[in-house]
Amino acid sequence: MTFEAKRDAHAARIEARLDEAMRDFPDNRITAGMRHALHGGKRLRGFLVLESAALHGVPAEDAVHAAAAIEALHAYSLVHDDLPCMDDDDLRRGQPTVHVKWDEATAVLVGDALQALAFEMVASGGLPAERRLDLSAALAFEAGGRGLIRGQAMDIAAETATEPFTLDEIESLQAGKTGALIEWSCAAGPLMSGADSTTMCHFARCLGLAFQIADDILDATGDEVKAGKRVGKDAAAGKATFVSHLGTDGAKDRARALVAEALHMLAPYGPEADALREAARFVISREF
Amino acid sequence: MTFEAKRDAHAARIEARLDEAMRDFPDNRITAGMRHALHGGKRLRGFLVLESAALHGVPAEDAVHAAAAIEALHAYSLVHDDLPCMDDDDLRRGQPTVHVKWDEATAVLVGDALQALAFEMVASGGLPAERRLDLSAALAFEAGGRGLIRGQAMDIAAETATEPFTLDEIESLQAGKTGALIEWSCAAGPLMSGADSTTMCHFARCLGLAFQIADDILDATGDEVKAGKRVGKDAAAGKATFVSHLGTDGAKDRARALVAEALHMLAPYGPEADALREAARFVISREF
Repeated sequence: MTFEAKRDAHAARIEARLDEAMRDFPDNRITAGMRHALHGGKRLRGFLVLESAALHGVPAEDAVHAAAAIEALHAYSLVHDDLPCMDDDDLRRGQPTVHVKWDEATAVLVGDALQALAFEMVASGGLPAERRLDLSAALAFEAGGRGLIRGQAMDIAAETATEPFTLDEIESLQAGKTGALIEWSCAAGPLMSGADSTTMCHFARCLGLAFQIADDILDATGDEVKAGKRVGKDAAAGKATFVSHLGTDGAKDRARALVAEALHMLAPYGPEADALREAARFVISREF
Repeated sequence: MTFEAKRDAHAARIEARLDEAMRDFPDNRITAGMRHALHGGKRLRGFLVLESAALHGVPAEDAVHAAAAIEALHAYSLVHDDLPCMDDDDLRRGQPTVHVKWDEATAVLVGDALQALAFEMVASGGLPAERRLDLSAALAFEAGGRGLIRGQAMDIAAETATEPFTLDEIESLQAGKTGALIEWSCAAGPLMSGADSTTMCHFARCLGLAFQIADDILDATGDEVKAGKRVGKDAAAGKATFVSHLGTDGAKDRARALVAEALHMLAPYGPEADALREAARFVISREF
């Protein structure tokens, strides 16, 4: 199976789990907005969960609940991030954002319900209760005020800061905003099998940062079709990014070095880690 | 111990658990907002968790994590409910709301982080993993698009409905908006001990509805100091409430009948349910 075929098969499996989760919801604008927000995307985080699980001997039918959960959590964070009081974006995954298609109140509630749905799905499935609880506790940590929301708080602070953020500050911001959920996704396999997650977390930190640098490059070089969202916003806002600090070429070098480090972390694993290796390469080309 | 002393002791225990949870958070406006939103309130839901637990043989040191979790979840729902795009309130628990004291972006993120914190706390503590997972899954259900958010969705729909909501529709709305978290709180004891929760859920549905009717009466009769929030808003907006349908006296009668039904559900329990009995009586006087 080619990498693209595997990626699409994982995405289809996750999509089916998300459809199943939404099946017994009442019919109203919130659930319509939830379905809209859950649709599309390349499912990078869910892919990482399924591959991390496979690498640790956990079959896809047990891991798909966590894979769908992280995609629901990611979808919620995008809906809230796109709000007028946040990044004020009108386009996401090539579609109008929830507050544009409906309204702000709907977008707030859609995000809230998607976060709850993530915790509902992560608690489901056939893994031992202890493993599911570990996954849930780790997800709550990474999604909360010391993970994702810490990054968001720094992002808001960056907009009103008198000095542009340093490279270290940008790295710390992104470790929360993008890194937290990617780290959870990569740690999911060890968490599900009761193994040590140190190596996978190190892999995830390199991958997450490389992903964010590639996103900055995409924002700076401006292909909205490929991005599925508005680009050029950071430069227009005079916001410090990896590109503003390192230049496009420097940022590309940094992303490549991070991918090399990520691949190095996978060295102890055999060919069964090949899909993760390819994912790391795809991430910097933003084909993922 | 008097009922008031017990209520205050429970509140202090919950407060301590919330303080502990916030201890290792970074110092920024989001965590300041979280602390602000977590402060105050009578802790009715947490009280119900601790009493429901005690009634089912679960000690307070094991139940306090769930009691703190439901208060964090309730606090998040208030922060988002008070947003300008939702109910647009400037006063809560006698203090300025989060978006007034800071701004809207902060309020969105504070709510998001508090929801994650609820799931972090409910997963903590010394109960068997299976029980904590049951609590977490039930919380995700009640907090999501078939519980709390379903009620919020109906609340938004009520504002633009061409006909005022019927009494049945108001009951259904409130079963989500207020009832879902109260039901989880009352079911927490059975969930923690692996017992059947049917009786406690029935008790909770009566209590939750009585509580909401008392809230409508408070809104209509207008004591902002007692309410700790703006009152008279429903009438001003021409919104259908229990009071607009039944009149103040009719609403009081209905609340009393619901409390009687709630007390009836507790009949199989002995004097160890006395605190819940008193809570039900306090709820309609809105001393709770």
